[in-house]
Amino acid sequence: MAHRDLIRPFIVTDGRKFRMRDVDPSDTGGLPPEIKARSKALLQEGVERMAALQERLYAQDRWGVLLIFQAMDAAGKDSAIEHVMSGVNPQGCQVHAFKAPSTEELDHDFLWRTSRALPERGRIGIFNRSYYEEVLIVRVHPAILGTQHIPPPLVTKRIWKERLEDIAAHERYLSRNGYVIRKFFLHVSKAEQKRRFLARIDRPEKNWKFQMADVSERQRWKAYLAAYEDAIQRTSTPEAPWIVVPADHKWFTRLVVSNVIVEALEGLNLQFPAIDAARRAELAEARKLLTNE
Amino acid sequence: MAHRDLIRPFIVTDGRKFRMRDVDPSDTGGLPPEIKARSKALLQEGVERMAALQERLYAQDRWGVLLIFQAMDAAGKDSAIEHVMSGVNPQGCQVHAFKAPSTEELDHDFLWRTSRALPERGRIGIFNRSYYEEVLIVRVHPAILGTQHIPPPLVTKRIWKERLEDIAAHERYLSRNGYVIRKFFLHVSKAEQKRRFLARIDRPEKNWKFQMADVSERQRWKAYLAAYEDAIQRTSTPEAPWIVVPADHKWFTRLVVSNVIVEALEGLNLQFPAIDAARRAELAEARKLLTNE
Repeated sequence: MAHRDLIRPFIVTDGRKFRMRDVDPSDTGGLPPEIKARSKALLQEGVERMAALQERLYAQDRWGVLLIFQAMDAAGKDSAIEHVMSGVNPQGCQVHAFKAPSTEELDHDFLWRTSRALPERGRIGIFNRSYYEEVLIVRVHPAILGTQHIPPPLVTKRIWKERLEDIAAHERYLSRNGYVIRKFFLHVSKAEQKRRFLARIDRPEKNWKFQMADVSERQRWKAYLAAYEDAIQRTSTPEAPWIVVPADHKWFTRLVVSNVIVEALEGLNLQFPAIDAARRAELAEARKLLTNE
Repeated sequence: MAHRDLIRPFIVTDGRKFRMRDVDPSDTGGLPPEIKARSKALLQEGVERMAALQERLYAQDRWGVLLIFQAMDAAGKDSAIEHVMSGVNPQGCQVHAFKAPSTEELDHDFLWRTSRALPERGRIGIFNRSYYEEVLIVRVHPAILGTQHIPPPLVTKRIWKERLEDIAAHERYLSRNGYVIRKFFLHVSKAEQKRRFLARIDRPEKNWKFQMADVSERQRWKAYLAAYEDAIQRTSTPEAPWIVVPADHKWFTRLVVSNVIVEALEGLNLQFPAIDAARRAELAEARKLLTNE
């Protein structure tokens, strides 16, 4: 199975051409039905490939990798992170989940808290939600802007366009400084979300995942999709593409996410640091000292 | 004395027109010689005005103020910060001095360490050196780039133009989010720097300020001025102007810096938060409770 053919339809490198309606949340990439049974093994291959690449990333200490996950509730963000990344050395991989901002965070610019959490070079940083919340939930609920203490004259009609422009410039800067960025929007259908919510309500061990607010956010489905569409249109670039992943079938979601990450890492042509003559001599000297100890 | 007339010649809001040679480091703004004796009192007035405005800034908790100081050695950066800002409540005013970056800082993008140190809303943050070092000392000594672990394919001839573009975009973003930015370049002449270095060498209580490296950096005077000029040309905007302050006369330097800060704060039309009817009733209730205690 060719990775590239599987993921290509979902990678947005030029936002101007993107339309949300062109992506079907129930898409499974035309894979034959029997592949689902094999998807676990395929995913495992991906994890192993990723773990090997991540070791080189870490040893080389040049590039940083930033993976952003955004989605409507119950689209499978948490479980995708769990299944795709488990197996990678946690020393080189850190996950930050961004929830409602603290008072200290609200007293800063909106990129402050995520900038602090950027991964070091040589590491993979995962943002479970991110600064994109500022043009998603805040856009759908503009009253939240009031909690951000922004001087009123700066809160104009242009604010969403400006924020998206600022985010695009921030990502351009990061990519120029060695960050490889991939942004995943897990695109679930409203019908599938309903099924998953009902499962959370009906199965006691899943009750903890359910909140009443999840249902009220559902009423704003169209507003959210419009906000996502605008964000994807204005911030998709070859350096920081969005990947709009069909999310009605979790096995397919994970396969796409895994393959996108592997392809991004492979594109870096990662090598263990080269050993020159001086270093080889140093290692030989160390060997001698240890042997004669 | 009108503040604006004093400072206007030194504020650069459109970098394209800026030429370093147009600013004379020994300029004293045509002030009559007797003003020097009065400059201390004028500075004190500035400090008091600033302290009053800063209290409103803090109470209102909307705007943040970022003051950046850059200069060649011995231009009077530290003493300007000391004399202009002493008297302002330290609770609302924080100074960060950025020296050679740590290993952890080098393992991140170049804006990481300064972004973490940005002042909260309602406060004045002072950067003694800043992210501009990345287009000044690093540009003059490109070998430093090697310590930054940036992936080699990203280190191209365009890197300085890109960094300046990234800095301008960063400042545009900050200003959109409520930061008032003023960037001071204290412009000292090479002859005056020599006098000050000799004083540092000849006066034992000033010896600690002198380092041999200061003299070797002096050899690169032209390269530094060219780097400053390019930075000022590419990052001066009405929202984040550079102020190119003549720095051969310390009393004049401080007067300009002080007036620029006061004018910036005055431009915000700062007010104590308005008290509405509900809040007034609450205060009256509290008074009653306390009185009857």
